[in-house]
Amino acid sequence: MTDETTIEHLFTEPIRESMGGPSYGDWRSISAPDAVSLSYGFPYPDSLPNDQLIEAAEAVFEAEGDQALQYGGGEYVDRLAADVAARARERGIDCTESEVLLTNGATKAIDTICRAFLSPGDAIFVEAPTFMGALTLFENFGVEVAGFPVDSDGLDVDAVAAALRGRRREGRPIPKLLYTIPTFQNPTGTTMPVERRRRLLELAAEYDFVVLEDDAYGQLRYDGEDVPTMKAIDEEGRVLQVGTFAKTIAPGVRTGWILGPEAVVGELARIDAGGTNTFTRSVVGRYCTDGTLDSTVPELRAAYERRRDRMLEALEASMPPEASWTEPEGGFFVWVELPPGIDADRMLPEAAEEGVTYLPGEFFFPDDAGERCLRLSFSHVSVAEIDRAIEALGRATRSALAARSADD
Amino acid sequence: MTDETTIEHLFTEPIRESMGGPSYGDWRSISAPDAVSLSYGFPYPDSLPNDQLIEAAEAVFEAEGDQALQYGGGEYVDRLAADVAARARERGIDCTESEVLLTNGATKAIDTICRAFLSPGDAIFVEAPTFMGALTLFENFGVEVAGFPVDSDGLDVDAVAAALRGRRREGRPIPKLLYTIPTFQNPTGTTMPVERRRRLLELAAEYDFVVLEDDAYGQLRYDGEDVPTMKAIDEEGRVLQVGTFAKTIAPGVRTGWILGPEAVVGELARIDAGGTNTFTRSVVGRYCTDGTLDSTVPELRAAYERRRDRMLEALEASMPPEASWTEPEGGFFVWVELPPGIDADRMLPEAAEEGVTYLPGEFFFPDDAGERCLRLSFSHVSVAEIDRAIEALGRATRSALAARSADD
Repeated sequence: MTDETTIEHLFTEPIRESMGGPSYGDWRSISAPDAVSLSYGFPYPDSLPNDQLIEAAEAVFEAEGDQALQYGGGEYVDRLAADVAARARERGIDCTESEVLLTNGATKAIDTICRAFLSPGDAIFVEAPTFMGALTLFENFGVEVAGFPVDSDGLDVDAVAAALRGRRREGRPIPKLLYTIPTFQNPTGTTMPVERRRRLLELAAEYDFVVLEDDAYGQLRYDGEDVPTMKAIDEEGRVLQVGTFAKTIAPGVRTGWILGPEAVVGELARIDAGGTNTFTRSVVGRYCTDGTLDSTVPELRAAYERRRDRMLEALEASMPPEASWTEPEGGFFVWVELPPGIDADRMLPEAAEEGVTYLPGEFFFPDDAGERCLRLSFSHVSVAEIDRAIEALGRATRSALAARSADD
Repeated sequence: MTDETTIEHLFTEPIRESMGGPSYGDWRSISAPDAVSLSYGFPYPDSLPNDQLIEAAEAVFEAEGDQALQYGGGEYVDRLAADVAARARERGIDCTESEVLLTNGATKAIDTICRAFLSPGDAIFVEAPTFMGALTLFENFGVEVAGFPVDSDGLDVDAVAAALRGRRREGRPIPKLLYTIPTFQNPTGTTMPVERRRRLLELAAEYDFVVLEDDAYGQLRYDGEDVPTMKAIDEEGRVLQVGTFAKTIAPGVRTGWILGPEAVVGELARIDAGGTNTFTRSVVGRYCTDGTLDSTVPELRAAYERRRDRMLEALEASMPPEASWTEPEGGFFVWVELPPGIDADRMLPEAAEEGVTYLPGEFFFPDDAGERCLRLSFSHVSVAEIDRAIEALGRATRSALAARSADD
């Protein structure tokens, strides 16, 4: 008989302390059979390029033979790194492929950066709300996760500055990392203007920390002006930028990257040891360099823009006046603040009954705040489903409002 | 201008201390244009199943549509975990799929286990020599890596017992992990008899550590009797077994697994956060469950057996009597001990000149021992190349011997 408690006491202290805590992907359990799910940032089904990936695989094998499946892979693996660098240069980042580390997705990229910089007892600053997958991951490091408000212009950098001043004065830990999603933030959809970005970089220099820039949605802008990424305006080498093909090719290729100073990327590569999925990377390398990616991204943008527009219209039409929401210029998400006194988590069963599920705000906060808030994703569903779902959300909210009034 | 030293001082202490050290894959730089490479444990080119992977991908997309590329994937991802568990049961391991964690390869599996158990200052016991990729990885954890001799029956468990007694007496750290490749060890090709395995498990229980069993080669036996894996005879839940499809499908699918007690695997999954390459895992899942894997493994065994036989014959024919080598019953490697006074690393340029490259022994020791030893891999080359390569090795060794005599 296996005694399941035989070795768990040997876990490291941070692991023991976070045992049984929330896990990456836990949020996927939120669903209801007859409800439209606005819970997840999944690409819409038709966008997933099954046939093109088969074609890319065939082309890779044709060109490289067995080399594509061997340790190290063939030339398409290198071409992929070069392609990532070239696309970054097009977006104003001065870099070469030696500043690119390909990773098993963006979350793994974040994890690798955390491994390089975080020791138990360190601090990391994050947006609150922020990507729930990053929050569950930070838990593994035994660090203080300090959250800072997000307004319609993204992270409140003044609040960060005040906290840093306070910490320095009180001799409390200055963060090693500040994790931000400056463009089309998950979950709020907000974008930090360039002035805030510059101010944040000044703080990073003044207080000596690393900016971990998550640019997962940066290529999916539907309107408004491009804002330079943090990495593009980083003159000191303090920004490590994380990107992914999850939103522009498919989540299932699980391929992301880190862009950073060459020496730092070299050390990150050492930490991220264990070889490369050359099968997927070659296929993605082919897909990125034969024109397929370039030809599909405009389509994706148009399809997501339609969905976003429809969701914003539907919210306008269905939600009571006391509710408010963000109006993202890109990405996958709208962040809703419900009327005072309404708890998004408690409202979820009623909403599911009405025909919609969402992710309650507390998933996105390090301290379980956000009870009035919820995240809607417009990425996965059709416009008809968006209409139905938002009508259902409106009904659920009004019904919760009525219950609130009855309680008063 | 990017100053590459801006943020490296913020790295964790173990990372700072190991900076610039050897990196996973460094050994791949050992090659020479006209020499036969016996350096790497690469599968032979014809074994790599390009066409079958395309077919598997087509079948997965046919069955699952876009689900295969979505977050979480479709049913073939789950089927793969179930298949790994079923194959483990066939090999005498009592387990279900909830005791399987799929990983991005075996090295990543080892890394995840290290993350769960190792803190800076801890100790890990390893075979010396052992897999060089594991050694470079252990460096990242700031731990003491203590090596123990390997004889023709694998790890010298008595030496481990003596060290544990000494450590307990002296109050020095008892290891959290013992890393072993008990079957067809890399690099020696040796296999631990079941008695040693049982004794090692007794020690693990007595001294309270985890046995990290690397079974990368376990399915590639060419003759002799099967020996139960450590995991198969583990009654206490102290063994975490790592496996991989790198040798039976292809390195490039970069898919491995951890088998362990369900509660431990659950925590390891939390550490290994970041989602799954559902593209590759589905394709591998299909490949494993549609009969392709079962139909190819006997072929692989026969092909590797031919290569091993030829290498052993060639060594017998070409090497001077003062040299000795192991006679593996499976796996990819033969471990050669050169005559006294000959340094395998110093002999390498001459050997390359003669027409062969290998990996010098020091790659495989935590303390750069093994200067008389070298690893030969028979997995990647043809039997004709093996003949040529071993003849070249014989010439290089005799020439080094002659130089040694001249020095005397």
